[in-house]
Amino acid sequence: MRFLHTGDWHIGKNLAGYNLLADQHATFQEIRKIAQDKQVDAVVIAGDLYDRTIPGEAAIQELTKELATLNIKEHLPVLAISGNHDSATRLGIGHQWFVNNDFYLNTNFSDAFHPINIKDTQFFLLPFFGLQEVRNYFADDHIQNINTAMQKIVTKMKESFDPQSQHVLVAHFFAAGSKRTAESETMIEVGGLSAVNTDILKDFEYVALGHLHNKNALHEERVRYSGSPMKLSVSEAPMEKGVWIVDTDPFEIQWVPLKPVHDIHVLEDSMDTLTNEQFAKNYAKDDYYAIKLTDREIIPDVMNRLRQYYPQILSLSRKYGFSDPKRHQQSTKTQLSPDKLFEDFFQQTIGTEMSAEQEKIMRKTLEEVMKEND
Amino acid sequence: MRFLHTGDWHIGKNLAGYNLLADQHATFQEIRKIAQDKQVDAVVIAGDLYDRTIPGEAAIQELTKELATLNIKEHLPVLAISGNHDSATRLGIGHQWFVNNDFYLNTNFSDAFHPINIKDTQFFLLPFFGLQEVRNYFADDHIQNINTAMQKIVTKMKESFDPQSQHVLVAHFFAAGSKRTAESETMIEVGGLSAVNTDILKDFEYVALGHLHNKNALHEERVRYSGSPMKLSVSEAPMEKGVWIVDTDPFEIQWVPLKPVHDIHVLEDSMDTLTNEQFAKNYAKDDYYAIKLTDREIIPDVMNRLRQYYPQILSLSRKYGFSDPKRHQQSTKTQLSPDKLFEDFFQQTIGTEMSAEQEKIMRKTLEEVMKEND
Repeated sequence: MRFLHTGDWHIGKNLAGYNLLADQHATFQEIRKIAQDKQVDAVVIAGDLYDRTIPGEAAIQELTKELATLNIKEHLPVLAISGNHDSATRLGIGHQWFVNNDFYLNTNFSDAFHPINIKDTQFFLLPFFGLQEVRNYFADDHIQNINTAMQKIVTKMKESFDPQSQHVLVAHFFAAGSKRTAESETMIEVGGLSAVNTDILKDFEYVALGHLHNKNALHEERVRYSGSPMKLSVSEAPMEKGVWIVDTDPFEIQWVPLKPVHDIHVLEDSMDTLTNEQFAKNYAKDDYYAIKLTDREIIPDVMNRLRQYYPQILSLSRKYGFSDPKRHQQSTKTQLSPDKLFEDFFQQTIGTEMSAEQEKIMRKTLEEVMKEND
Repeated sequence: MRFLHTGDWHIGKNLAGYNLLADQHATFQEIRKIAQDKQVDAVVIAGDLYDRTIPGEAAIQELTKELATLNIKEHLPVLAISGNHDSATRLGIGHQWFVNNDFYLNTNFSDAFHPINIKDTQFFLLPFFGLQEVRNYFADDHIQNINTAMQKIVTKMKESFDPQSQHVLVAHFFAAGSKRTAESETMIEVGGLSAVNTDILKDFEYVALGHLHNKNALHEERVRYSGSPMKLSVSEAPMEKGVWIVDTDPFEIQWVPLKPVHDIHVLEDSMDTLTNEQFAKNYAKDDYYAIKLTDREIIPDVMNRLRQYYPQILSLSRKYGFSDPKRHQQSTKTQLSPDKLFEDFFQQTIGTEMSAEQEKIMRKTLEEVMKEND
């Protein structure tokens, strides 16, 4: 059989305050198109469908619409698990009814041991889990780390292996050898304890992982992260996004890249270059930008001037710091007073010194804030 | 056909801090048993399945389990709508898949005009709505109140009436003539505007309403509230709870009462009587109690003493106020200082004056609270 492997959709995520829902919607239309073009037999989603345990209503509507289109309208079997960003309970609502339509959404640890059979393949859907769940399930308090846990889990799964079938594990954890590169992975540890050794997974013909957003996080033929289908943080700017198309027998794997709807660019250059018409016109106005200025001088009105060319700025920093020796001296001090820190921040982002009136407002506000912290 | 009419489940509701989930679970087991005994063809739930727009995970698990047992395990068709306490989006998750199993959960206004046909009956599922939704749907800004809105809605529904069928409306609103008696109905106005005149509903053979928790709120044969299946506030203490069993053709309606798992009692009596062993032993320790003392004197340690007989006290008040003229004088003042108010509250609930140490703690706490409010 042939399936599409994706994951880490993080629907509802905000990027530095920008709502990504429209981009996410467009991305999933592309994924659907790939599924059609490649005539896959199923779509596998390896966790983190939502960005938050209590997603907003718009995010719920978007995910439900995507899944309904894939599964109800296009009659594609869907296999999905919950990730660390999902609430197992909230994501799992309705799963009892979904199975009748070949939509297998597993958010319960204990259901991981009942494989789903589609064509020549047994899928084992292992949601994100905590060690205590494993201890409870096996009634074994001696399970102290993720590798002992996974060994028990795989041994138990193998009891249901049909030797005539292919065996695919869908899971959401940090696998050993994988490199943590994406800032947006806020919870890197699984159950508080290290990473899964991929040797434990060797009995599966393929392991479809979610958790890390970089498809190159692991260097193994049959244990792979799909990565997120969209760039979800500045650290993901250099990554190529896409989905895997996996054939089980004979085994074959193919990467299908997804073009970003609105790309994330990291621009490191001088203010003069960045605000040069010829330079700037190479960059789409509705893309996202992380800007590192190579200048060391204070630049008046810097944010507004940059926004004329790059309206969606995710971050602004100085590659080499500031030339002002006073400032330099200050910034090496480990303890600056809050008003000094704010003054520096103001100068750096607005590009001018504060007026007397502005300073007054700042002091008043700081006083109030300090009082609240008492 | 024969169906069971219930509503206002309010799963996840807390009663003065007491978690009702276990009682709600037991109540729904009773409802299921009634559905079996009466051999109904469907179960109608007229809104407010949850108590809150963002229900807790335990409430989600409870509702999903109940619905799955009714609909998947016992193969009973279920017809349900969202009420004002539900989030249409959150309650509606998965409804696209549920229909294949004869579970019709409508949380979308526009879907109210597609009747569900079960046996001899067309069910029109009208979720709780706001006037703006009606204006948008009919592209008519002149809809100024709930009656104009309902007239348009019923006229539109009648276009789909099959004259060979019975017609049942399931809705969640405040119907004229109904008496607002239950405190737990926090949002009494529908779309901000008055109540539906039941004349508008005369073309339906039956209207299964939710919103008010009293089955006797209306005095009409064919337009009825089921009321909540459990007492959900002290004001509901005198109400009999249960479900309607409705036969459509020939029309017949039958009330099946539900015995409270833990009843709510309002006790108006003297401290001496209430703490009399003989008196108290008539009252179950795990029931809920709203106590109005007829005494007018300060009673030391009143709450703890009452809790020995009635551990689950929902409220404690004085039927005739206090005899202390100083106190009486104080309580008629409209503006008491926070420390004075707290002193009174302390005396009334604990039954003694504050000690010097207690007063010191109170003053310190109040000072901190006041500072935060600045």
